[in-house]
Amino acid sequence: MSDFSFNCINTYGILGFEVFRVKKAVVLLSGGLDSTTCMSVAYRDGYELYPLSFDYGQRHSRELQSAIKVAEYYGVKSHKIIRMDNVGGSALTDYSIDVPDYKGDSTEIPVTYVPARNIIFLSYAVGYAEVVGAEAIYIGVSSVDYSGYPDCRPEFIEAFQRVIDVGTKAGVEGRPIKIITPLINLSKAETIKLAYQNGAPLHLTTTCYKGGEKACGVCDSCRLRLKGFKEAGLKDPLEYEIEIDE
Amino acid sequence: MSDFSFNCINTYGILGFEVFRVKKAVVLLSGGLDSTTCMSVAYRDGYELYPLSFDYGQRHSRELQSAIKVAEYYGVKSHKIIRMDNVGGSALTDYSIDVPDYKGDSTEIPVTYVPARNIIFLSYAVGYAEVVGAEAIYIGVSSVDYSGYPDCRPEFIEAFQRVIDVGTKAGVEGRPIKIITPLINLSKAETIKLAYQNGAPLHLTTTCYKGGEKACGVCDSCRLRLKGFKEAGLKDPLEYEIEIDE
Repeated sequence: MSDFSFNCINTYGILGFEVFRVKKAVVLLSGGLDSTTCMSVAYRDGYELYPLSFDYGQRHSRELQSAIKVAEYYGVKSHKIIRMDNVGGSALTDYSIDVPDYKGDSTEIPVTYVPARNIIFLSYAVGYAEVVGAEAIYIGVSSVDYSGYPDCRPEFIEAFQRVIDVGTKAGVEGRPIKIITPLINLSKAETIKLAYQNGAPLHLTTTCYKGGEKACGVCDSCRLRLKGFKEAGLKDPLEYEIEIDE
Repeated sequence: MSDFSFNCINTYGILGFEVFRVKKAVVLLSGGLDSTTCMSVAYRDGYELYPLSFDYGQRHSRELQSAIKVAEYYGVKSHKIIRMDNVGGSALTDYSIDVPDYKGDSTEIPVTYVPARNIIFLSYAVGYAEVVGAEAIYIGVSSVDYSGYPDCRPEFIEAFQRVIDVGTKAGVEGRPIKIITPLINLSKAETIKLAYQNGAPLHLTTTCYKGGEKACGVCDSCRLRLKGFKEAGLKDPLEYEIEIDE
């Protein structure tokens, strides 16, 4: 089996009834809709999945529980959760700043921006990819519905790819780790359709910034999600505190 | 005083006998020789210092104690220490891998390489700089005596600068945070001379990878330090387990 593995040039091989995967991918898995869709894409692409999540004192720690459930759903062998101090300065991690309700399509960078969050997450993903020998990092950023975050844009991803290529042992030794962004050009509705096509477990995800038992339905993040489902013509499997106009 | 501060276009102002500093810099401070020299440069350059250190289960936790002493030496108001999980895979953080003794000038990437370490450290520094409003990040990397680490080279720093410029709120809003690498072209001997010129407290630093009461004098890091002092014609203020040929 190891020989077969070694010689296999396809994404995955089939031995009897067992599908095994020879390429590894780190997937940044928050437990939200986008990262769960990313998991489904990496799975479909045939990678052995190494999800990576963060416990950084976020308000919506239900999201972390969702990440654990999504990882279990995909039967992953190793789900790494990094406990980390955060540097403060965001409504998502600092309880003295109120989470604002949805204000429509704004191009301003919102107070929910967490300083350098994706930079820090990708950095850990690179380290983890080097340790496990992964050749890809999946991250569910979208430049379409990115809510004004600068670290969700293609030029940011390209810049970070260069950091990996020149600044890591893997990159320098010719085993580059590629950042894969399957959602970068997708609207929320398109992401939701992709998730359905891939059978992603959206019923396990958490999106609400406020972290209650049911989703609030009014925060920026809930509104973006609900708008996406409506445009996709699909029903959100989550329960909401407010009545949802379908 | 705040008005004067506001109008001051110099690096720092003098009010009576008190020197106050209007520009802020985050300094990556490990407590080693290089980062302490970096502190001395940032201090000389007139910045209010925001040192940032990491507790990542490193073998040489004495280094962290050194960082605390160096920060105290400079009378900093806020020394941020980030406790973080590490991703494993290095002799510096994984006790099952032996720290090798010095093997001479090698261009190989050594087992003491910590996957993505400087990428992760710089990422936190960017977040912290955004939170405190710092305009500079000092990091003591050297491409001359870099022991084969890819994340100590100028092309890595340039790539990371681009990440900051396009991927942060500060960068996008035209308040760029600049990475400053005062040691990038300096040999260890030149760094030591610079430290002496600036009155850097090298007696408080820790360099040894092995983390004992006295420095071992034989590990890669000790040997590089001792070679530097010898070439600089200066005496290392640290105590060593072995007799040092001066």
